[in-house]
Amino acid sequence: MTKAGPKPPSDRTRLRRLNEKAAYDRATIDAILDAMPLAHVGYVMNGAPVVIPTLQWREGDRIYWHGSAASRSLKAGKGMQVCVTVTLTDAMVLARSALEHSVNSRSVMVFGTAEWVTDPVAKAAHLRTMVEQLFPGRWDSLRPMTEQELKSTGLLSLPLSEASAKISAAEPGGTDPDEDKGWPVWAGLLPISFTMGAPLPAPDLPAGVDLPAHAATYRFGEKPE
Amino acid sequence: MTKAGPKPPSDRTRLRRLNEKAAYDRATIDAILDAMPLAHVGYVMNGAPVVIPTLQWREGDRIYWHGSAASRSLKAGKGMQVCVTVTLTDAMVLARSALEHSVNSRSVMVFGTAEWVTDPVAKAAHLRTMVEQLFPGRWDSLRPMTEQELKSTGLLSLPLSEASAKISAAEPGGTDPDEDKGWPVWAGLLPISFTMGAPLPAPDLPAGVDLPAHAATYRFGEKPE
Repeated sequence: MTKAGPKPPSDRTRLRRLNEKAAYDRATIDAILDAMPLAHVGYVMNGAPVVIPTLQWREGDRIYWHGSAASRSLKAGKGMQVCVTVTLTDAMVLARSALEHSVNSRSVMVFGTAEWVTDPVAKAAHLRTMVEQLFPGRWDSLRPMTEQELKSTGLLSLPLSEASAKISAAEPGGTDPDEDKGWPVWAGLLPISFTMGAPLPAPDLPAGVDLPAHAATYRFGEKPE
Repeated sequence: MTKAGPKPPSDRTRLRRLNEKAAYDRATIDAILDAMPLAHVGYVMNGAPVVIPTLQWREGDRIYWHGSAASRSLKAGKGMQVCVTVTLTDAMVLARSALEHSVNSRSVMVFGTAEWVTDPVAKAAHLRTMVEQLFPGRWDSLRPMTEQELKSTGLLSLPLSEASAKISAAEPGGTDPDEDKGWPVWAGLLPISFTMGAPLPAPDLPAGVDLPAHAATYRFGEKPE
């Protein structure tokens, strides 16, 4: 089903690749996109690259994000060529030599032409899906969206037909060549993960409004297990 | 000293901006760059945007990162127009209406022409600085870098003359307009931070090699306090 996308250029091409794998299967790509809402969207403006952090979400074979009013007016009616990159950092890889140091990470790059979602019914449905994927059950408890809010929200959509994942998953000491393994320096992994702090409620919540499950159990950067 | 950089386009321009501030002072910019090594480097290849995750580090008025062999051969001898974006996510902002939901975050965008560092002595010094900033004291304990390793490593450098920071720091419930504050739904912040897991040593460390302080105290995503 999935067309093999372009290979993501690597910034570590000179290093050993034993533990770095490119993947084009949708299960791998989807898992990374679903685990990490933060995306960096690259586009070209007046010939120069611009990279914007935003939140993405996936619905089937496409990802979505809020488009800026700026790029919207610039590109009204036209698609926008983009590269959307989503990255999870799993561990710092400490090696016996400087250049074998690395980062265990999972990333996805999606290339293609992003399109504006203009149909108001479709747009409202996608915004609802975004909220419900992040915080199940929340949408119906919110103050309803107004027509003006809906109208003024830009929504971009990009197919996953040209997507690829890159996974670096070195074992502790796994990037070192054999001849370095006797070197008397600590080598291994320093695992990185996200933690949620205690929720901070608004000071003016009406009486009887408690912390909902979707806020209590929310985790950024991974799906709850 | 710092030239005001271009304003970063916002992807939430329609939303209230009470809590979103653009900053051009170097102290703010430097603090974000120093707190988060993960960067997303955008460049234009054959007219299309490409966004690559990599690690950046700052030395004074410039940032540095490893350049890919691919872009290196493509652009040998020339500068490369880039946008380097560094993002820290601090909290999910839950509001009483869908479109006031937001993310508290700190980000920096650096625009400009990246240059290759080609002088081997300078290159070696920068690579040493990278390792020492991440892991103080580590460089001298490593298996020394070879000439071939140094030669095959691409190093890019970008001045901070066109840099800007954007900080979103909403208070709990702070994005909601007054008229929404009575709505009976939980609103507030879900704070996000990074946690380091227990270090995982290589299975074949020589006897007597213990976990060094620079590994035991390392924190990704923020400076140790």
